[in-house]
Amino acid sequence: MKEINIGILGLGTVGIGIVQLLKKRQAKIKNIYGVHFNLKTIAVRDVNKKRNVELPANTKLCDDDSKVIDDPDIQIVIEVTGNVDGAYHAIQRAMQSGKSVITANKEMLASHINDLNTIAKNNQVNFFYEASVAGGIPILRVLSESILTDSFEQVNGIINGTSNYILSEMLTNQADYHQVLEAAQQLGYAEANPRNDVKGYDAAYKLSILSYLIFGQFLPVSKIRLQGIDQISIEDLKAAQNDGYKIKLIANLKRKHKQLTASVVPTAIKKDEQLANVDGVQNAIQVTSDALGRTTYTGAGAGSLPTANSVLSDLIASANTETNGYSMALQNDNNNDYQIIKNGGKSQYLIIIHLRDNQINSVAKLESIQKIKFDNISTMMTNEISYPELQLLLKKIKNHVHPGTIVHAFPIFKS
Amino acid sequence: MKEINIGILGLGTVGIGIVQLLKKRQAKIKNIYGVHFNLKTIAVRDVNKKRNVELPANTKLCDDDSKVIDDPDIQIVIEVTGNVDGAYHAIQRAMQSGKSVITANKEMLASHINDLNTIAKNNQVNFFYEASVAGGIPILRVLSESILTDSFEQVNGIINGTSNYILSEMLTNQADYHQVLEAAQQLGYAEANPRNDVKGYDAAYKLSILSYLIFGQFLPVSKIRLQGIDQISIEDLKAAQNDGYKIKLIANLKRKHKQLTASVVPTAIKKDEQLANVDGVQNAIQVTSDALGRTTYTGAGAGSLPTANSVLSDLIASANTETNGYSMALQNDNNNDYQIIKNGGKSQYLIIIHLRDNQINSVAKLESIQKIKFDNISTMMTNEISYPELQLLLKKIKNHVHPGTIVHAFPIFKS
Repeated sequence: MKEINIGILGLGTVGIGIVQLLKKRQAKIKNIYGVHFNLKTIAVRDVNKKRNVELPANTKLCDDDSKVIDDPDIQIVIEVTGNVDGAYHAIQRAMQSGKSVITANKEMLASHINDLNTIAKNNQVNFFYEASVAGGIPILRVLSESILTDSFEQVNGIINGTSNYILSEMLTNQADYHQVLEAAQQLGYAEANPRNDVKGYDAAYKLSILSYLIFGQFLPVSKIRLQGIDQISIEDLKAAQNDGYKIKLIANLKRKHKQLTASVVPTAIKKDEQLANVDGVQNAIQVTSDALGRTTYTGAGAGSLPTANSVLSDLIASANTETNGYSMALQNDNNNDYQIIKNGGKSQYLIIIHLRDNQINSVAKLESIQKIKFDNISTMMTNEISYPELQLLLKKIKNHVHPGTIVHAFPIFKS
Repeated sequence: MKEINIGILGLGTVGIGIVQLLKKRQAKIKNIYGVHFNLKTIAVRDVNKKRNVELPANTKLCDDDSKVIDDPDIQIVIEVTGNVDGAYHAIQRAMQSGKSVITANKEMLASHINDLNTIAKNNQVNFFYEASVAGGIPILRVLSESILTDSFEQVNGIINGTSNYILSEMLTNQADYHQVLEAAQQLGYAEANPRNDVKGYDAAYKLSILSYLIFGQFLPVSKIRLQGIDQISIEDLKAAQNDGYKIKLIANLKRKHKQLTASVVPTAIKKDEQLANVDGVQNAIQVTSDALGRTTYTGAGAGSLPTANSVLSDLIASANTETNGYSMALQNDNNNDYQIIKNGGKSQYLIIIHLRDNQINSVAKLESIQKIKFDNISTMMTNEISYPELQLLLKKIKNHVHPGTIVHAFPIFKS
């Protein structure tokens, strides 16, 4: 029986899920795998906070990180604090102490994944982060296991459950954005400050991680074209639906030779496409690759148990591989030798123009406006145009109609 | 640099794909993984057959299995012959000679997976078969990596590309079964003798493998409720569509405590369900489990490159794990301690009755007939009923209308 001592930093939703799932599976892991994970110490900010979890009898709860990081007995540290800078330094120290690290911290990884990978390599420890992207889908493990056999061209993902839930509910209930956001906050599907979710940052952090894992290329969020869902109205969704499209917040990473483009933008997807039918808080990741063509993975994006499952998978992988620096991204070259072109590439766009009654004629004069729709909404489909060309077109439309006209442009999904 | 000698039995579509893909990836595998796979010997039935592949300079092509199986240099044997008995004995001998084995042979595995697993364990060799189920989707690896962290309840799969292609084309082109089958055969999507695909056997073999991997339970095909697609007419598909359903050949494996039921039957799926939108030769597997809820994997089901990719994944896994008997199913208990209930469980059914003009009145008299449709098709929805209850109902319908009446019953998909 192999005994492995683990320590956890943080005991929020995910931390609690880990404790519960570990308890559930300990017997099976012992019997089949011959390993016992001893949950030695959990460090939190506030030991007196009321938590809905029963800790194992011999697990120590404390408010001092170093009781986890500096304990020579502890071999694996799980970081699920949710904060950024504190977590980065804690993980650094843990690795430098020869401890393997498992984290779910996407925002921290979006900034530090490159240097943490280097530190892990130098200290010959394992470094896993399955729970940081699409909590319930084993996507990072699957992709890392494909790195040697396949060659990736494109990744498209619905990887923020909150924004996907909002867009789905707006359409289902024919309700406006603010109404649905409020309801989502009450249900706990959106935070009090929903910025990270609705402005696309959360999806961008995850896209960063995917870029590093798949291409070995560090992708700063600043190089990702970012557009959130907070300007979308129910009229936009209805107009798109009328043209046969669903609007989804799509995270896209595209490779062309040694160039990468990355974006998180609301996108128009034909309704019979698989991604168009991923609704509510579900996540989905569609990968286009040389050997397999198109593969789609759909499942839970978050939640205590699904995320805990990802952490537990990492725990088992960490116990399996010899401490030799194996980690998901260590398989790849990490050469950072791609050129990242922000706002690169071309796309077709579905343009939705919100008109006032007296503006309909002026729009009709604008060439290539294809149809006037119900409720003073006009839509048009562009050819494949570049991002600068799109900006010019939007300016042209506003000049023709009215400078304050609401015009939304949704790239058309192309797999 | 770790040198590993491999031998291949068979050089058909999949074998050729393996040679090509290995050639493409050798450099990457060397650089990142530090392993060189030396393709030493390939044994085929007919060395003179014209094949569209260029073999590496030092690879020997021969017509003698023993030059692969009995060569002490060769460490891993890849079996892609497509025949059943010969392959079983070859694999046995290879394992007993201390060689790890990778196979794509689903029909052989459906009968022999249990004893081959035992032989692999006894000889402490690796035994992988990712390519045997949904060629391009890494489903077995994903599931085997979830065995320790999760608990499975149900698997639903579209795992035969030929039948899925036929059903999709029938609906898209409003064409009848025989017309589409012929076109599929000409395109190479269906065999000259299409029996295995259209009668559900191919899907059943794969379901057997899934049962063994996930539950450690050997599942003979004879215990799977089997119904093919060869009795389905375009009228059935249109009637189902009119009620909001798509008909798909679904392989289902369901666990209730220590009981399993398994079936491969044409099933009615609500059109907004993910599985309803998996068309053409695509495959999809939907897993319902304790920690993750529902997860869906969609991708290529077959084809030279996708299947070769699965084999190459197994090759890399086989080189990675020490030869200690690790294999996908060795993680599980393989206790064979489930009770398999054939035709167990209850389901709602969509019943489609093909009527002659003079029969419509007699059907209307039959209680619980819900609607009379266009084109002399009547559909009805049952409550949740057992398989024996279904048989009674079908008999009752035929007694009322005419003994020769065509009546089709499609279980309603419930995830």
